[in-house]
This record gives sequence, C-alpha cells and structure tokens, in this order.
Amino acid sequence: MAKPVVLRLGAIKYAQEAWERLGQIAQVVTVEDNSTRADFLKACQDSGSKISKTQVIARTFASVQNTGRFDAELAKALPESVAAVCHNGAGYDQIDVSEFAAKHIQVSNVPELVNNATADTHVYLLLGALRNFEDGHRRMLENKWPSSGAAAGAPIGHDPEGKTVGILGLGGIGRAIVERLKPFGFKRFVYHNRNRLAPELENGCEYVGFDELLKISDVVSINIPLNAKTRHIVDAKAIDMMKDGVVIVNTARGAVIDEQALIEALKLGKVRSAGLDVYEHEPQVPHELLNLPNVCGVPHMGTHTVETIKKMEEFVVQNVESVIKTGKVLTIVPELKSEAWIDDQKPL
Amino acid sequence: MAKPVVLRLGAIKYAQEAWERLGQIAQVVTVEDNSTRADFLKACQDSGSKISKTQVIARTFASVQNTGRFDAELAKALPESVAAVCHNGAGYDQIDVSEFAAKHIQVSNVPELVNNATADTHVYLLLGALRNFEDGHRRMLENKWPSSGAAAGAPIGHDPEGKTVGILGLGGIGRAIVERLKPFGFKRFVYHNRNRLAPELENGCEYVGFDELLKISDVVSINIPLNAKTRHIVDAKAIDMMKDGVVIVNTARGAVIDEQALIEALKLGKVRSAGLDVYEHEPQVPHELLNLPNVCGVPHMGTHTVETIKKMEEFVVQNVESVIKTGKVLTIVPELKSEAWIDDQKPL
Repeated sequence: MAKPVVLRLGAIKYAQEAWERLGQIAQVVTVEDNSTRADFLKACQDSGSKISKTQVIARTFASVQNTGRFDAELAKALPESVAAVCHNGAGYDQIDVSEFAAKHIQVSNVPELVNNATADTHVYLLLGALRNFEDGHRRMLENKWPSSGAAAGAPIGHDPEGKTVGILGLGGIGRAIVERLKPFGFKRFVYHNRNRLAPELENGCEYVGFDELLKISDVVSINIPLNAKTRHIVDAKAIDMMKDGVVIVNTARGAVIDEQALIEALKLGKVRSAGLDVYEHEPQVPHELLNLPNVCGVPHMGTHTVETIKKMEEFVVQNVESVIKTGKVLTIVPELKSEAWIDDQKPL
Repeated sequence: MAKPVVLRLGAIKYAQEAWERLGQIAQVVTVEDNSTRADFLKACQDSGSKISKTQVIARTFASVQNTGRFDAELAKALPESVAAVCHNGAGYDQIDVSEFAAKHIQVSNVPELVNNATADTHVYLLLGALRNFEDGHRRMLENKWPSSGAAAGAPIGHDPEGKTVGILGLGGIGRAIVERLKPFGFKRFVYHNRNRLAPELENGCEYVGFDELLKISDVVSINIPLNAKTRHIVDAKAIDMMKDGVVIVNTARGAVIDEQALIEALKLGKVRSAGLDVYEHEPQVPHELLNLPNVCGVPHMGTHTVETIKKMEEFVVQNVESVIKTGKVLTIVPELKSEAWIDDQKPL
C-alpha cells in the first residue's frame, strides 16, 4: 500500500527529526520556496502532480505567501483526497474553517503550547508601554542623553500600583498573562469573554461587561482570536470609552484593533501608549505607527523562541500522524468540535 | 530662634507640597541651575552666603552636575554646621561616606521604595534580552519586515523554561525581581551575597559561591551596590567563567561591569545579549555598545515613574524633618549604623 501523502507548506526550523520519523509512514511533499497561489491552485488540479494526491496538509503562518489565505476558492480547489489541514499556530484566522468543514476537511491548530511565550511577550510590551522604555531607548540612540535630562527626556512612566488591568479574552494566554502580572502589584484584574467562565478558570479576575472593561481599565490587554465578530472590536468608539491615558497591549491579532483609530488616539494622547506584537496589515506596518514615540512594538515575535517553535512544529507532526493513524486530528478547532462527520473519519 | 537651614540640591518633580510643609519649620535654600562645583565649594566657605549656614543637605542623583561627587574635598569644604546629607536614591556611590562620617555628618539613602520600580525595569530588560525584542523592533524600523523573513530576521530567542537565573545580590531589589520572575517558569534561582541570608530572606533561592553562580547561570541578574570591592566585579575573567550564550541584566550600577569587556563578549556572542539600565560612564554611553543588536538598553529609567519618584522625594523630606526634630536621619546608610557619635546627635 502506498504511503499517505502529506503536503508540508512553509519551512520548518527545529522539527527535522519528527518529520524524518513521519517520513517512515508518509510520503512528504512540498512546494517550491518561490511558488505562488496560482501555482498551488494549478498543482492541486493537475492529476500528474504529487500535490493532487495530498491527504493531509501541514501549514505555517508564513506559508500564506505561497498559497494565499485558506479561503473558499482554495478549499474548492483542494484535491478531494485531503482529510485535514494541520495549522502551526494558535490563531487560524488565515483559514475560513467553514469552507473546509463543508468539504469534511478537519482543521487543527496548536493551542496551549503558545501560551507561555506569548504571555512573556505580552508582559514585556505591557511594561515597556507603561514605563516608556522604548522611548528612552530611542532617545539614547539619538544622543539625547544627557542633553535632554533624566532618562534622556523620556516621559515619566507609571507603576502597576493602583492600576486595573482589563483582560479582553481570558483564555489560555490571558490566564498565563494574569499569572505573570500578579506579583507586580496591580490593584485589580477584570476580564470580558462572551460568556462568564467557571470560577476555577477565572484565576482571581472579575467578570465585567465589554463596555465596563473599557471604562475602568488602566491597561487593556487584548487576547481574543480574530474573526468576523472581533474584527475592529477596538475601534474609535471603543477607544473613546476608555480612560484618558489608557495603555493598550495587543499580542493577539492586529485587525481586532482599527489601526488607524489607534494611531489617532496615540497621537492625541487619549491612548498614552501601546505595546504591539501584531498589526492590521502585517508584515506591512504604517510608518506613522512605528515612528510614534509612545509605541513599543515588535514584529510578531510572540512565539519566536527556539523552545516554543520546536514544540509547535513537533505538535503539528503529531496532528498529522494522528490523522494517518486514527483518521482524526488531535486538536480540532473549537467550532468543529461537535461536527458529526468527524466521527466517521477513518485511518488513511 | 531662626529656622534650621536646609540646602536642596537638584530639582524636585512631585513633592512640592512636602517641601512647602517643610518650609514651615526650615529655611530652604538652593543653588542656581547652572552653578558649578567651584561655585558650590566657594559658597560653602563664604560666611556671607546662606549656603554657609546649611545644617541639612537634600540631594538628587542628577545634582552631581552642580556639585560633583560628594568626596573628601567636598566633605572638607562643607560648613561645620552640616549634620546630615539626605540622598534621594537607593545607591549612594556618589558619596564617599567615610569622609562625611569623619566629620560626624550622617548620610541617608532611600531604600525599599525603589525596589518595585527597579524590579519591573529589570524584568523588562531580562525578557527583552532573552527574546531579542529590541533587535526585532530595530529591524522593523529599518524596513526589514517582511524582506528579512519572520520577526524581521531577529535571531530566535529563548523561553525561561529550563533556565537558571543567578541573582548577584539578593537584597530588596533582588527579592522583588525573584518574586516577579517566579511565574515565568524558570528552572532554578540561585544567588550570591557576601554572606548567606537567613532562610526566610532567601525566597526560595539557593545560595552558591560567586564562581559557581557565574558557571551555572543562564541569566546573570546584577543587583549589587557599587563600591571599591564591587567595581568591575564582572570583568573579562568573570565573563569568561560564564556559560556560552549567557544573558546579563544590570539595573544596579554600570561600573560593577567592565563595560569594555562586556562589549567584547557581546560582539563574540559569549554573552548572547544584555539588558542594561546603567552604564559605566553614564550619561556617556559608548556608541559601540548602544549599536550592538544584542543590547536592550534604557537610559537609567529604573525608578522613572510618577508614583515612585513622588514617594522617594517625599521620603527625602521625611529624612530631613527627622534630622530637624530628632537629630537623626530615618534611614542611615548601612556602614554608619553602628557609629557611636550618631547617638549624640541633637534636634536642630
């Protein structure tokens, strides 16, 4: 019997061994580094290509450059043989899950493993924004020390003491952030999810409504997935409800914030400062945003660590293996959890 | 009876009220913003000047620009009436305490109040150094995203998982740092002080020798005061004993590290990265150091917050008030604690 065909989209950095092991039970195919969406859609339909025999797809966030979004068009073009798309990442907004579900293609993500590294990034950006550290750094590089006085003239920052942190989205990452922030001496942690969590998952955070969270938080910490309902949930109107001088931190997805509205609010000082790992149109980031002194920003480095990348890559392989051996991914995305057709999936 | 004369050296930002209240029991004098050490030494000796009547001095770190270091020459020049120097800051390496003690002048600092803000800064720099966040930021500003790939080409960082943090100097700040770092998932905390602490002060950190700390730590966290014994305690030889790829974080004083040796080690990658709030010759910082991509640096912002600056400034006033009312400062520096002459001090 021929080995099942696994299409790997995007480079791997550390999971060579895991992929070699997978090679014993699967035939692994890839696309060229410079291949385009058009190439990919064509190969899917070309019965002479190996890609047209694909049964499982493993993909990275960056592979979007070779395929474009996993949208209706791409779902339609995929070979009928595809049983699952195993995405490497917690957020899978690049995949229109319902289009794949319609073809009975499972979609998995990598939850939990990303929590710690993302929370570490969040705490760094939060402290940076609260304390204007990035501004101080920039001023030092611009030779403003000592000519501009103490801290090279960077605006004086604030202590956590007496401040309320509002966690927008208290899931695994939000909880990891709260755990880390507890010893810093904040006054209060509140959160908003669509539904209140069971007390054992609240981790000492008080549940409040969305508007209430915006009104009372000194720091708004954003940890919600991007989807049609959350796109631009933090828009000009939402920012207007916030405290003057609020600090916003986003390590979720850029497009949950209306970036242009954020820029305006940062310029006016309505938002005192922002800590950003993600951007609405990343990797395109407006210079107007980057050049603001009250922005502490990094280029999507939330899980950019040797240890976490390795674990995530290896977990994608585990998802692929599980499809081959049991017919089912290990970590199906939440919206597919109760789909009846998944129960009928068979080993490949 | 004339009110006692208090000389205030250096600007205050937030403690106006406290100084106004002090004005009811004391005559507060200052020096001109552009006055020099020569001006100051002259005024001390000029019996016509108010400064020559000074009984208590309150000083800031930045006032060194008006007086120079509080060294033997300055101690000698001070009016005989001076009973105390109340320094605003935890570190008082600008003051040669023994020269003042010889004249029975008390020296106080501001301990504890600085701990939280300094520890927050330390955690920021530690995360930044461990994760190469500053490098990512810089690359994004240089338009290297997406052209240089994921994270704009910033080297992949590391998670706390499995790492040992070596706390060089487990005092109030060191303990505040450890408290904050505990939820991040480091494997082990070790510390070195000249003497082992009582178990209740060890906070879960294991005591090790100086050499041992250097050898086993993945992150070396520096929190020791600067004095003749600690100057360049982290020199080329000490760095050589450290692990390849060690991360060094310093929010204590620049000169505890041999800065040139650090620069060489950062260039070679022996030290993977450094998080620095302080510099050997600050506010002069070598461009060679600042321009290294593996340095996450801020211009001495450890206590640069509204809340902490206010508390520190107010506490200096409390020290001054205490000298006026009781003859004694509240927080004498440790090396003067057992001086017999202090018991004889009388209210002013």
